[in-house]
Amino acid sequence: MNETHDHALSSWLSAANAKDTDFPVQNLPIGVFRRRSPGDAPRGGIAIGDQIVDLSRASKLFEGLAAQTAAACAAPSLNGYLALGHEAWSALRLALSRALRTGSALEEQLTECLVPEADAELVLPITVGDYTDFYASIHHATRVGLLFRPDQPLMPNYTWLPVAYHGRSSSVVVSGTDIRRPCGQLKPPSASTPTVAASARLDYELELGVVVGPGNAPGERISVDGADPHVYGLCLLNDWSARDIQAWEYQPLGPFAGKNFATTISPWLVSLEALEPFRAPWSRDPSHTQVLPYLAGVDNAARGAFDIQVEARLSTAAMRERQVPAQVLARSHFHEAAYWTVSQMLAHHTLNGCALRPGDLLGTGTLSGPEREQAGCLLELSHGGQQPLTLASGESRAFLLDGDLLSLHAWCEREGATRIGFGSASGLVLPAHPLYD
Amino acid sequence: MNETHDHALSSWLSAANAKDTDFPVQNLPIGVFRRRSPGDAPRGGIAIGDQIVDLSRASKLFEGLAAQTAAACAAPSLNGYLALGHEAWSALRLALSRALRTGSALEEQLTECLVPEADAELVLPITVGDYTDFYASIHHATRVGLLFRPDQPLMPNYTWLPVAYHGRSSSVVVSGTDIRRPCGQLKPPSASTPTVAASARLDYELELGVVVGPGNAPGERISVDGADPHVYGLCLLNDWSARDIQAWEYQPLGPFAGKNFATTISPWLVSLEALEPFRAPWSRDPSHTQVLPYLAGVDNAARGAFDIQVEARLSTAAMRERQVPAQVLARSHFHEAAYWTVSQMLAHHTLNGCALRPGDLLGTGTLSGPEREQAGCLLELSHGGQQPLTLASGESRAFLLDGDLLSLHAWCEREGATRIGFGSASGLVLPAHPLYD
Repeated sequence: MNETHDHALSSWLSAANAKDTDFPVQNLPIGVFRRRSPGDAPRGGIAIGDQIVDLSRASKLFEGLAAQTAAACAAPSLNGYLALGHEAWSALRLALSRALRTGSALEEQLTECLVPEADAELVLPITVGDYTDFYASIHHATRVGLLFRPDQPLMPNYTWLPVAYHGRSSSVVVSGTDIRRPCGQLKPPSASTPTVAASARLDYELELGVVVGPGNAPGERISVDGADPHVYGLCLLNDWSARDIQAWEYQPLGPFAGKNFATTISPWLVSLEALEPFRAPWSRDPSHTQVLPYLAGVDNAARGAFDIQVEARLSTAAMRERQVPAQVLARSHFHEAAYWTVSQMLAHHTLNGCALRPGDLLGTGTLSGPEREQAGCLLELSHGGQQPLTLASGESRAFLLDGDLLSLHAWCEREGATRIGFGSASGLVLPAHPLYD
Repeated sequence: MNETHDHALSSWLSAANAKDTDFPVQNLPIGVFRRRSPGDAPRGGIAIGDQIVDLSRASKLFEGLAAQTAAACAAPSLNGYLALGHEAWSALRLALSRALRTGSALEEQLTECLVPEADAELVLPITVGDYTDFYASIHHATRVGLLFRPDQPLMPNYTWLPVAYHGRSSSVVVSGTDIRRPCGQLKPPSASTPTVAASARLDYELELGVVVGPGNAPGERISVDGADPHVYGLCLLNDWSARDIQAWEYQPLGPFAGKNFATTISPWLVSLEALEPFRAPWSRDPSHTQVLPYLAGVDNAARGAFDIQVEARLSTAAMRERQVPAQVLARSHFHEAAYWTVSQMLAHHTLNGCALRPGDLLGTGTLSGPEREQAGCLLELSHGGQQPLTLASGESRAFLLDGDLLSLHAWCEREGATRIGFGSASGLVLPAHPLYD
């Protein structure tokens, strides 16, 4: 904790002081934007209230490491910035915090570096080298496991290691990108042979994304208590899933075409430093006493988790037509949902020497809480489609329909700290392309 | 087939006419090299006999599309070249074929563009955006399935779709890169809880890699008979595998830490055009009659397969000490081993609109033939480690030991065509890094 976290700080930018803003001066998440004007090039920016600080312009107002770090954000993706590491990120955060505070001598000059978010297009902030998806909620794993494998919902490895698989980097898109309903091979349990059709069980997954900083060389390991410097921060992540494609294909090598068509992330990356006031102890079911040494850090146990509230909202075409607000489908807490911490994910990922590179993306897995009402996907909420949800609009949903707009949200609130948010990660479901012939 | 395939062609470079060369004038595989001298930058080259044609230098000798294509190879990776597509690749191939033939007027000028392969370092030729590994040998899937799941070796989906999972791009290294034995969580069947240790069951997998050309936009599909223009060509691929890590972790989401520590590819990419004389009909077990329309191309049935011989060789530290040649562990044929063709892999991969990008890499999966002696990994050859192989040197191997040098090789031979080869993909196994305590 340092002066940038001070709850008493306010900004000369009044929108940053609004009670419900995601982007007060204590947050300062980074992203990549361009003005909505022809030829304007994507470049790094920091969200503050309803504005974006153009970092390459602002770099001239700063000195030393903060100026160098801001200048590195002139590129169309943040990978170079992510490679710089904690000292550089922290220097820029401090300089921005001081410049944006009420009373700053830089107010006038910094005002010239502001772009209203309403005038900007937010683009994918990172070039994802590799995307790994974990499976960190034991509640999700258990409830989904019951649907896919009633005889053995939870595999014996679950409480020993953070289970994960590799997703597809080319599937990662930024919030606002439309999601085309995928076609694929499906075989309903009642059918004797598979067919090819548009997925009828399209789902979302409410996750957080972890953005890797400097990473590790091939063959090197990251220790659980040494993981923080390798993590830049977190974002929202929706691992869109076609449950019918997934159910037929996933054995024995795991999910593939049921997942690799689209993965939406939020445009803003919230740094670990901004999340510092919201750290929490790592807690797990007290009956699970055994932790292998490489996952059992002292620091990780004391403060490895983050108290983040996550939420999924659905806005159907009919709701938008009638100007009804989106409906909250479920809400849960990262630190309650996740069996494993981010640091444990990194320690496990690199135990074999696997190289993580700047801009790599890890998904936490669907962050379902202990109660079914806290589930992070429709597969759980509708009990495998058997019990469709009735929406306030009178519509019902077992899975997503064309025209549905699904958005994820997250925020941190705690007594004595300023609320910070993650913005949103949304996607509109488009009808499938017609099949050939 | 065109003039570049003519069996009667010879080169003014005598090493290219040797009976056993992998790189006659009919092959012309592309890679990225640098001279072994300080500051020399990696750039594209074509293998011919024991020499490399420096493409950016040679571009000045060509005209039109061939010259433009060669100039695009000045970059340190071939992704830009791969994006250009078949017409560009073919124009350069024709120009090189003519310039390298006996009697070419360009002999003297082209000689100045040659770099002896012995003076060059071959580097990773592509920046891999995504790496997908298929499971195309039904013989491998069945024999490995028997070891992992005796009650259900082959899943019901196997004969309906090309099963695949996503591997890790950061694990892809070029031939000659040392392979560090990974550590990981292991739980032998006899143990009640897992432990962390160096893998004791390190294995190789004899595969071919498929290198993607222009690819498809998100949401678009590639048809089975329209797949060729999206494929640049093939290379060798060793999907190093830690069987003990894999066995404990892989359910329910598939292989992860048992695979993502290293994947070796050969430095030379052999184009589909060079492989044209070695095309073969797609054949499968006649009892498997049903093929879904998107996998059942007419052209694919007639010529979707490739007649390529693949081979794994082992050279132990003791063999190298005694200057004994490497021992062939197994040999098989791509078109006999693979249940699915490359075109079917692309059609399935993109059925859901998944985007393939230039330089993406697909592995075929372990190319085991019908007989166990034709198996493409030690797990099969040693029957799960139960029946270690006795080597000619008197040593035995159930799995790889530190100091083992494992190399993959492949070539095409057919009456009336000139033999072409893939070079090799090799890696030396280094001892594990000591574990943290």
